[in-house]
Amino acid sequence: MVRHMPQRNQADPALPTIFHALADPTRLAVVERLSISPASASELAKPFAMALPSFMQHMGVLERGAIVTSHKSGRVRTYQLAPGALQLAAAWLAEFRNHWERKLDQLDHLLITTTNPKEDHEPLHP
Amino acid sequence: MVRHMPQRNQADPALPTIFHALADPTRLAVVERLSISPASASELAKPFAMALPSFMQHMGVLERGAIVTSHKSGRVRTYQLAPGALQLAAAWLAEFRNHWERKLDQLDHLLITTTNPKEDHEPLHP
Repeated sequence: MVRHMPQRNQADPALPTIFHALADPTRLAVVERLSISPASASELAKPFAMALPSFMQHMGVLERGAIVTSHKSGRVRTYQLAPGALQLAAAWLAEFRNHWERKLDQLDHLLITTTNPKEDHEPLHP
Repeated sequence: MVRHMPQRNQADPALPTIFHALADPTRLAVVERLSISPASASELAKPFAMALPSFMQHMGVLERGAIVTSHKSGRVRTYQLAPGALQLAAAWLAEFRNHWERKLDQLDHLLITTTNPKEDHEPLHP
């Protein structure tokens, strides 16, 4: 199956809205909760010391970022995690994996040579 | 080497600031440019139709999110991508990989059974 992936080094126009939706500790905690199972608005709001209208504003930001979708059944609105947006963000970040692994390897090397400054100068078989 | 990884399903307190730094198309484009090589503020600002002070505000947000670091040599400030923050964001998103792969597989299955509604009912060897 061909899944939607961003073009290399060309940010998808949806990415800023997705990252904005994730730029808040309450919203991150909601995403973590929804990764376990769908939940109603009141269940999701319970752990937070926050008025329901304020909490629902956070849910609105998550919906606009397409991080979650919701449906209403009677008086209960149930939210679930949507698969696309988090995957898009992960795919964009994955493009920089080579960069940060190279940087971390350089730090490793620096730490090793700083801790053992003579290592590079000592012959292997004196 | 043991690298810093967030505890499973426990968002690192730095994550909202990191995601906020990525919640803007100019800042995303700067990250993409810096993944190629370090660059001066004026080089980085060149592609954007924006006054330098406005552009420097974006660079400030990227520095506060620890996405970039900078050093000044004479009158030139040079920026480079920092390895830690993007890696932290990627590690947090990777926790949801199982979730979205399961969801996308469900969508695949739904598409297949909608396109070929009789598939499940036809015997393999009629």
